[in-house]
Amino acid sequence: MRWLDPPVGPAIELLDQTRLPAEECVLVCSDVDSLVDAIRRLAVRGAPLLGVAGAYGVALAAFRGEDVAAAAAKVAGARPTAVNLAWGVERALAAWGDGADPSAALAEARAIADEDAAASAAMALHGLGLVRDGARILTHCNTGGLVSAGEGTAFAVILAAHRAGKLAQLWVDETRPLLQGARLTAWEARRAGMPHSVLPDSAAASLMAAGQVDLVLTGADRIAADGSVANKIGTYGLAVLARQHDVPFVVVAPVSTVDLNTPDGASIMVEHRSAEEVASLAGQPVAPAGTQAYNPAFDVTPPALITAIVTELGVIQPVTPGNLRVLGAGTSAVAGPQAAIYVER
Amino acid sequence: MRWLDPPVGPAIELLDQTRLPAEECVLVCSDVDSLVDAIRRLAVRGAPLLGVAGAYGVALAAFRGEDVAAAAAKVAGARPTAVNLAWGVERALAAWGDGADPSAALAEARAIADEDAAASAAMALHGLGLVRDGARILTHCNTGGLVSAGEGTAFAVILAAHRAGKLAQLWVDETRPLLQGARLTAWEARRAGMPHSVLPDSAAASLMAAGQVDLVLTGADRIAADGSVANKIGTYGLAVLARQHDVPFVVVAPVSTVDLNTPDGASIMVEHRSAEEVASLAGQPVAPAGTQAYNPAFDVTPPALITAIVTELGVIQPVTPGNLRVLGAGTSAVAGPQAAIYVER
Repeated sequence: MRWLDPPVGPAIELLDQTRLPAEECVLVCSDVDSLVDAIRRLAVRGAPLLGVAGAYGVALAAFRGEDVAAAAAKVAGARPTAVNLAWGVERALAAWGDGADPSAALAEARAIADEDAAASAAMALHGLGLVRDGARILTHCNTGGLVSAGEGTAFAVILAAHRAGKLAQLWVDETRPLLQGARLTAWEARRAGMPHSVLPDSAAASLMAAGQVDLVLTGADRIAADGSVANKIGTYGLAVLARQHDVPFVVVAPVSTVDLNTPDGASIMVEHRSAEEVASLAGQPVAPAGTQAYNPAFDVTPPALITAIVTELGVIQPVTPGNLRVLGAGTSAVAGPQAAIYVER
Repeated sequence: MRWLDPPVGPAIELLDQTRLPAEECVLVCSDVDSLVDAIRRLAVRGAPLLGVAGAYGVALAAFRGEDVAAAAAKVAGARPTAVNLAWGVERALAAWGDGADPSAALAEARAIADEDAAASAAMALHGLGLVRDGARILTHCNTGGLVSAGEGTAFAVILAAHRAGKLAQLWVDETRPLLQGARLTAWEARRAGMPHSVLPDSAAASLMAAGQVDLVLTGADRIAADGSVANKIGTYGLAVLARQHDVPFVVVAPVSTVDLNTPDGASIMVEHRSAEEVASLAGQPVAPAGTQAYNPAFDVTPPALITAIVTELGVIQPVTPGNLRVLGAGTSAVAGPQAAIYVER
């Protein structure tokens, strides 16, 4: 996603994720309505990137002389459950202030994008320390540049490992039901030129049993105060299998994902989605019409199964409530004998 | 599958599984070529049913006055790796003998079908003893009437539980990549009127964590002498998860599945299938063109994770080489203090 200045702009350019992997189609949103439409139909998705998109939306309205307050409300409401979207809108709106200078909103949007990219780079750096030479890494869902103004979370670590010559193989869980792994992560892996293979989610177990996985890396949607991690459905099963096969299971997520107001895994509300996502694949029915489905969007992995959590501030290991509290307080962590969070150089 | 006498026959009637669940389409094979075609394109599939189909094929050739030896070779070679197919052809061919009486081949085909149905009924009876009242059972792949002249293996137990009023819920793994669970098992569950829901394979873990699974029942493709079970990809992961959540993991398979010539799990050759099965659906790509895939058809579950194996002769519990040897010798087992195999009445 990037801002386009005149003469093409003011406009927001983004990759239409709904067309991947069949087509790489760039969308240019020249007004707020087209941005709202892109957000609604998931052409742009992923928490960090939605924050950036929201802020750019406010800047776009300001530059075009639209009613900024109305436009901001429209953008923030495009996907009501996406917290980052409203947060990005709010930040840009506050920067715009009395409306004298549209470029103040744009500067704030760019600051959000820069912060996201910097966090991504820092996570990559910290995570790289956990990757051994010749690593065969398994990942789940999509956590790369498509959901971030930078290079993402878990995928940023994988990219860093690839560039450092440490990555022997990336195993990409296809990630049913919406196939973000097969559609998006495989596309990003291919663009980066890294060795990779897609697998049915249920094949990860036999891959681990065959000794073909050295590390599991996933993102997180929410981390509770006890270290429980809510992430894409299938993550918990991977964590159980990783433990069974003595494979490190590492979560990569920005500090903003840690929610100290959620005490534990049981307190995390898990969204259940429509049966249609399971009963059809790529638009075609794969189960009898009207079949019911169990389709939770997320599952919850207890801290005991998580080897480490990589954040932009450092690595939390072991994953304990005390260590998470330090992080939640925004402490810039320093390595030490008892320090759970350390910053690699 | 059934034999049709004149005036419609001689012919073999079967349900075209490739059309399910969208259409329930009956195929009538009036000559050996149409049967071979049906077997090749998986309109009829599943080890036990292929044995019956092979024998009926020989009977069909005999009744139509075709060259029976040539027809038998053609049918047996329709799917070279399907052992049951060639076995069924051989049995019917031996019964046909010098070719004086075509009905001898037909009688043998019917005997194979009857034996299969009887084995299925016996497995259902033995397995039912392991199902508690109000059970919520999770199953994987397709193991019912579509692969059997009877009611199948694991699914036969589930049907028996349903009829006995013991089944509260059937959880149907969709079973990627070919979706036999969503396409076929859900169709059979719906026909039987049992409460059921389909789930992404990766959601089984969270279902177990939520305490929603009382028993896992699967079939088997091959059982080694040490009790290792090769079955549809994803079975091993389910077994690990079942153990983690103290859920019994039970395999249902006829004695013919036990292969004492295969000493252990490591000796089982696992077929790897094309990337295309994972990377596309009905010609529609779900991953970038040319994406590689890890796509083993089966995985291997070690005996330590298997609570019991249900056969037509009784239940093997615990699963040990010694107990399997008794079974492999074809012993009609009797319950006793040390007996691992018992027959329920």
